[in-house]
Amino acid sequence: MIKVGIVGGTGYTGVELLRLLAQHPEVKLEVITSRAESGVPVAQIFPSLRGYLDALCFTAPDPTRLAECDVVFFATPHGVAMCEAPALLAQGVKVIDLSADFRLKNAEIFKQWYGMQHTCPELLPEAIYGLVEINRSQIATARLIAVPGCYPTAVQLGFAPLLAAIKAGNNLADTTRLIADVKSGVSGAGRKAEIATLLVEAADNFKAYSVQGHRHHPEIIQGLQTMVGQSNPLNLTFIPHLVPMIRGIHATLYIPINPDFHNYNFQLLFEQFYEKEYFVDILPFASMPETRSVRASNRVRIAICQPNLATLVVLVVEDNLVKGASGQAIQCMNLMCGLAENTGLTQIAIAP
Amino acid sequence: MIKVGIVGGTGYTGVELLRLLAQHPEVKLEVITSRAESGVPVAQIFPSLRGYLDALCFTAPDPTRLAECDVVFFATPHGVAMCEAPALLAQGVKVIDLSADFRLKNAEIFKQWYGMQHTCPELLPEAIYGLVEINRSQIATARLIAVPGCYPTAVQLGFAPLLAAIKAGNNLADTTRLIADVKSGVSGAGRKAEIATLLVEAADNFKAYSVQGHRHHPEIIQGLQTMVGQSNPLNLTFIPHLVPMIRGIHATLYIPINPDFHNYNFQLLFEQFYEKEYFVDILPFASMPETRSVRASNRVRIAICQPNLATLVVLVVEDNLVKGASGQAIQCMNLMCGLAENTGLTQIAIAP
Amino acid sequence: MIKVGIVGGTGYTGVELLRLLAQHPEVKLEVITSRAESGVPVAQIFPSLRGYLDALCFTAPDPTRLAECDVVFFATPHGVAMCEAPALLAQGVKVIDLSADFRLKNAEIFKQWYGMQHTCPELLPEAIYGLVEINRSQIATARLIAVPGCYPTAVQLGFAPLLAAIKAGNNLADTTRLIADVKSGVSGAGRKAEIATLLVEAADNFKAYSVQGHRHHPEIIQGLQTMVGQSNPLNLTFIPHLVPMIRGIHATLYIPINPDFHNYNFQLLFEQFYEKEYFVDILPFASMPETRSVRASNRVRIAICQPNLATLVVLVVEDNLVKGASGQAIQCMNLMCGLAENTGLTQIAIAP
Amino acid sequence: MIKVGIVGGTGYTGVELLRLLAQHPEVKLEVITSRAESGVPVAQIFPSLRGYLDALCFTAPDPTRLAECDVVFFATPHGVAMCEAPALLAQGVKVIDLSADFRLKNAEIFKQWYGMQHTCPELLPEAIYGLVEINRSQIATARLIAVPGCYPTAVQLGFAPLLAAIKAGNNLADTTRLIADVKSGVSGAGRKAEIATLLVEAADNFKAYSVQGHRHHPEIIQGLQTMVGQSNPLNLTFIPHLVPMIRGIHATLYIPINPDFHNYNFQLLFEQFYEKEYFVDILPFASMPETRSVRASNRVRIAICQPNLATLVVLVVEDNLVKGASGQAIQCMNLMCGLAENTGLTQIAIAP
Repeated sequence: MIKVGIVGGTGYTGVELLRLLAQHPEVKLEVITSRAESGVPVAQIFPSLRGYLDALCFTAPDPTRLAECDVVFFATPHGVAMCEAPALLAQGVKVIDLSADFRLKNAEIFKQWYGMQHTCPELLPEAIYGLVEINRSQIATARLIAVPGCYPTAVQLGFAPLLAAIKAGNNLADTTRLIADVKSGVSGAGRKAEIATLLVEAADNFKAYSVQGHRHHPEIIQGLQTMVGQSNPLNLTFIPHLVPMIRGIHATLYIPINPDFHNYNFQLLFEQFYEKEYFVDILPFASMPETRSVRASNRVRIAICQPNLATLVVLVVEDNLVKGASGQAIQCMNLMCGLAENTGLTQIAIAP
Repeated sequence: MIKVGIVGGTGYTGVELLRLLAQHPEVKLEVITSRAESGVPVAQIFPSLRGYLDALCFTAPDPTRLAECDVVFFATPHGVAMCEAPALLAQGVKVIDLSADFRLKNAEIFKQWYGMQHTCPELLPEAIYGLVEINRSQIATARLIAVPGCYPTAVQLGFAPLLAAIKAGNNLADTTRLIADVKSGVSGAGRKAEIATLLVEAADNFKAYSVQGHRHHPEIIQGLQTMVGQSNPLNLTFIPHLVPMIRGIHATLYIPINPDFHNYNFQLLFEQFYEKEYFVDILPFASMPETRSVRASNRVRIAICQPNLATLVVLVVEDNLVKGASGQAIQCMNLMCGLAENTGLTQIAIAP
Repeated sequence: MIKVGIVGGTGYTGVELLRLLAQHPEVKLEVITSRAESGVPVAQIFPSLRGYLDALCFTAPDPTRLAECDVVFFATPHGVAMCEAPALLAQGVKVIDLSADFRLKNAEIFKQWYGMQHTCPELLPEAIYGLVEINRSQIATARLIAVPGCYPTAVQLGFAPLLAAIKAGNNLADTTRLIADVKSGVSGAGRKAEIATLLVEAADNFKAYSVQGHRHHPEIIQGLQTMVGQSNPLNLTFIPHLVPMIRGIHATLYIPINPDFHNYNFQLLFEQFYEKEYFVDILPFASMPETRSVRASNRVRIAICQPNLATLVVLVVEDNLVKGASGQAIQCMNLMCGLAENTGLTQIAIAP
Repeated sequence: MIKVGIVGGTGYTGVELLRLLAQHPEVKLEVITSRAESGVPVAQIFPSLRGYLDALCFTAPDPTRLAECDVVFFATPHGVAMCEAPALLAQGVKVIDLSADFRLKNAEIFKQWYGMQHTCPELLPEAIYGLVEINRSQIATARLIAVPGCYPTAVQLGFAPLLAAIKAGNNLADTTRLIADVKSGVSGAGRKAEIATLLVEAADNFKAYSVQGHRHHPEIIQGLQTMVGQSNPLNLTFIPHLVPMIRGIHATLYIPINPDFHNYNFQLLFEQFYEKEYFVDILPFASMPETRSVRASNRVRIAICQPNLATLVVLVVEDNLVKGASGQAIQCMNLMCGLAENTGLTQIAIAP
C-alpha cells in the first residue's frame, strides 16, 4: 500500500482527493493537514465521506508524519508547496503539487501572475508538468509533479494533436490566431467565502471573467509552445467564462486551417493521436460533448467539427476537479508508483 | 458471473442500472431491450457510458435471450412487468421490477391509482417488497421483487424505528397524525418529454404537486401499516414537492410524540434500529442531512430533531435513482444471488 | 415627491429597494448610505441599475441628509436601526426598518435570539408590525414600521384566515399542533461571503437548517398569537429548508381540523378573508402555486387543499425580497404617505 | 389605445408579449389565439398573469377579430405567419412576426434552413428586419416586420460599430475571420416537450450544439454583409452553446484587428456608435457584462476588451425573450405607431 499524505485538504481539490483515494485499492491515507480544521474528522466537514474515512481527522501541519509518507499531495493555495516541498523531497517523499507553484518554468513569470516571489526556483527545472498524456515517461520517474490547472488540461489536450503535427512539419494551421473560448463550472473558483460565487450571484447567469488576462494563460502558452516547437510562432486568445453549474469545463477552440489543408482528415489525426489513451475519448466527427458526460470521472471527451473549411473547431470537456485536478494528480501518482495508470480512476461519470 | 438482462433501459432508472452494473464485479450484462432504440448502442444514447459498455446495444424485446439470464430487471413504466414477468419466472429467471406493478398487495388499489387492470394478481402475494432493511430475509429467497418507489423508501425508512417500537408496545407517538413533507429532484419524474419538467419551467422554482393524492401514498401506507401492526391506527398526510435539482429526495417527517415520551431518547432508538445497516447512516442529533451527501450513492442518511418536546422531526435524504430505485434493486439482486449486500454499491457520494 | 433615504443599500433588500423605488412614480431617492462602498456609484455595484440611477452614489453614514428625507428605510443587519432610528424619528422622519430590530415586542426575547441587548426598547411599543393585510390602519398612521421577515410574512398570511375565524369563536382547528414546513431560495441568507451559500455548496442540493430553532419563530408566534387571541393556546413547529434557487419562499402549512369541521368550506373562508386584497391571490382549491408565479412581484399566492378530511394544508408562495422584504416596505410607505397602496408595485411576475 | 392581437400565444415569446403588453400604457389586448388552448384563460396557463389579464382567454384562430386589430404579433413557429400575414396586411393591419418567416430575403435559403417552401415570397422584399438600432427609420413606416432572432440580435449589435466603420472606409479588421462563440439560456429552445431540454438533461451541464450549422447563421450573415457593404468579404464562424439557465444570451465575438489599428480606440468607436440608443449600454473597457444584468429587460449591454493587440473581443448580453424577441417586437410596434420607442419597455432588470 502507498502511504499518502495530503496538505491542505479542506478545499474542493482536497475533498476530491479524499473521495478518490478512499476508493483507491493501493492507497492508505496516513495524514491530512489543515490549519483551520485541526482535530476535526474529515467526515464532519464533508458528510459525503461518512462511512469511509471515519477515523481520519485533519491535523495541524505535521512535517514528521508527512515525511513518513510515500507520496504527499499539496491541495493548497499557491505559495505553500514551494515552501514545504523541498524538505519532503529531501527525505525521499514524492511530491505532487496541485497548486501553481511548480507549473511555470520561469520564476519571473510566476511572480508576475501570482504576485509573490518564488522561494524555490531551483526546483523548477526538475518539476515535471503532470499532463500525463503528453509527459507520461517523465512523470513515471519524477519525484516532483506540477499538476496542470483545470483550463490548461482541457486546452492543451485539445490543441495537442494539431500542434504535434505542425511540429512534425505539417503546416496545417495558423498558430498565431488560436482562440480558446473556455467555460467553467463554479467549483473552479475554489471553496472560498466570496460574494461573486454565491448561488444568488452566479446561478441563472453567465459572464466572462479575467478577460484581459488569466493566470492559466502563461501556463497554457508554455505547454503549447513546447508542443509546437520553440521555432514556430504561437499566439492564443483565451477568454474564460463562468457557467452556473458545479463542475465541468468546456473548451471551444478555434483554429484557422491553412488553405492547403481545408480537406485534411482532422478526425483521423485526433483519433490516432489519442488511440492508446484510456482517459481521452475522441467522439465521432461533429459530436457535441457534454460536461456531464465526464462528471466526477477522469475522462476527457473531445470532438471536432469544421463549420467552414477554413476553421477547425475543437470541443473538449473534462471535470475540472478530476481530470482538471485531483484525478490527474492520482493518475500521476499511479505512474510514479508503478501502478496501472487508471488504478482507482475507472468510475463511470454521473449522468444525469 | 450473474447474467443480467434489463427490460426498458432508456429511462433514468435504466441508465443508472447500466452505470452501477457496468462497475459491478459479479455481473455480466447480457441484454438490454428498448422498443424505441433497438439496434442503437447504449453509449450513443448515454455518452457517459462510452468506454464501458461499448459493445452493448439496445435490442427489441427478446424473451428468449431474457430467459437465459439469471436476473432480469424491469426499468419500465407500470404495466409492462406484470405482462412479461410470469413467463420469465416460469423459466427460472429471478425478476426485479422497478416499476409499481407488484408493490401493492391489493389489485383493486393498484387499479384505482394506476388506471389499469392488474393482469397478474396471482403473483401479488408472492412478490416481495424490496425494502432491504425491512424485508432482508424474505428478499434473499425471493424470485420476484417489487422495488419500492423513491418516496416510499425514504419515508418508510424514516418512520420505521418509531413504528417498530410502537408495534412492540411502546406507545411513543400518535400514529394518526403523521405528516411527510417530501421534496424530490426532477429526475423523479422520469425521462419523458414533458413541458412541466423542462429546465425553463422547473429551474429557479419550487412547488408542491399531487397535493390531493400521490400514487406513492397507498404504497407507503401499506408499508407503514405493516411496520406498526394491523391493529394500530395509522394516518399519514403526504405532500410531495418538486425541487429544482437533478437527483435527491429529502423527506421531512413530523410525528406527534405522546406526552409520556417527551423526554424519550429517540436518537438512541434510531441508532440501535439501524446499527448494523451498511446503507443507513444515522447522523448526530439535530444534524441537517443534505441530498448531495448521498448523490449517486446507495446510502440513506437520517437525522432527527425535536424542535419542541411534543414533536419529533425526522429528516431523511436519499438519491432517488440509487437507493430510491436502481441501487436498491441491485442490493436486492446481491441478496438473492448470495453476494455481499453492498457488492458494487460502495461508491462514495459525489459532493460537491 | 417623497424624499427617500436608504441606510445600508448593498445587500439584497437594498438593491431590491433601489429597483422598486427607481420605478416608483412618487419617490425621489435622495441618499443611500454604505460604509463599505462610500463614494461608489450604485450602478457600479449593481450593473442592472445602469441607465436608471446613474447619478446616485453610496455615501458614508450621513445623519444630516437622512434627516432631510420624508422616509428612511433601514436595509441593514439587525442592530443598526435601533441605534439610528430614534434621532431620525425625533426630527420627523418616518422610519421603515427591514431588519429585526423592532419586530419583537419583548426586548428579552430579542436579546435571546439576536444575541444583543436592545438599545431602544422604549420604541418597541410604538413600532407597528408592517404586515399590511393585517395591520393596515395602524400602519397608515405610524411613524416607525418593523417590516416582517420573509418567512413570517408567508406563514402568517397563510394561517391568518383560520386563526381569525377561531378568534371569532369558530373552533375550526387544533392550534396546538400547527406545522410550517417552509422552503426558501438562497437570497434569504443575504449578500454575505459565506461558504454555505456558494453555488457549489447550495446548487443541486436540498437540506433543512436551523431545525432546533430559527429567529423567525418567535416573530411568527407573536403574530399568530395576536391573530388567534391571547386566550387560545398556540403551538407551531417550524422547519426551514434551503432550496437551490435565487428567490422565493414556499410555505406548506399543516393544520389539524377539528372533527366537527371536516366538511367546512375552507376555500370560501380564505377567499372572503382576502377578497379585497390587491396583493393576495387565493387560487382555486387544490391548486399548486409556484414560486416563480410571484418572482420579482409583490404578490402572495395561496392555495389550500385537504388531502384527508382531518388535515388542512395551506400552500403559500411569495418573493422573499419583494413581499417578504422590500416590496412590503414600500407598500407600508405608500400607506404612510397617503398613496394608493400598490403605487409602484404593480409589476407582473417574471416567468419563466 | 392600440388594438393588439397575438397569434399563437402559448410559447415563451407569447407569454413574454403578454407580460409586457399587459403593462404597456397604450395597448389594449384584443385577441390571442391558440389552437390547443382555445377557450382557456391565459392566466390559467400562465399563473404569473393572474390579476392582470383575468378576462382574456385564448381563442381559436379568428381572422375576423385579428383583422380588427391595429397590430398583430405572430408568436408562432415558422410557417404560420407567411400563410396568415397577407390577408391581415391586405386589411390594413400592421404585422410583426417573431418567427423566421420574413427574416431571410432569399426564399431559397429559407427553404434550405427551414425545410419548407416559402408560401409568400412576394412579401420578402417589403418586410423590414426589425433590428431597431440599425433599421429604425424603415421600421417606423413599415407594415410588415420580421423581428430578428435572439442570437442575430446580440451578434449583429456586437459587430455593428466595427462593420459600419469598415464600410465607411476604415480597414480596421479582417472580416473574413470573424468568430461568434454564443451561449444561450434554455428558453431559446422554446416551450416544447423535448427530452434534451428537461431540467434533468440540461441543468448542471454545458454543451455546444448545431456546430455544423445553425438556422440563425444565414440571418446573421445577411445582416452583417449589409452592415459591412456587399463589396467587402465576410466570413463568420458561429458556434452556439446551451447554458443551464432560463434566460439570457452571452455572445463572445472575436475579431482580428488589422496591424495598422492595434492601438485604435475601439472603446470610443462603440460609445459613439450607440451614444443615442436607449437600449444599448456600452460598459467601460474590459468590463464583463452578466446576463442577469438584463434579465427581463429590453437592454443590451456590450463591453469590449483587447486581450492582445491583434484581437478585439466584444461581449454582448441580452435577454433572449425580451430584446431577443418580444421586447424588440414591441419596440418596433412603438415606432410603427408613433410612440416613444421605449414606451412600456423601461423596466429595470431583475437581479439578483
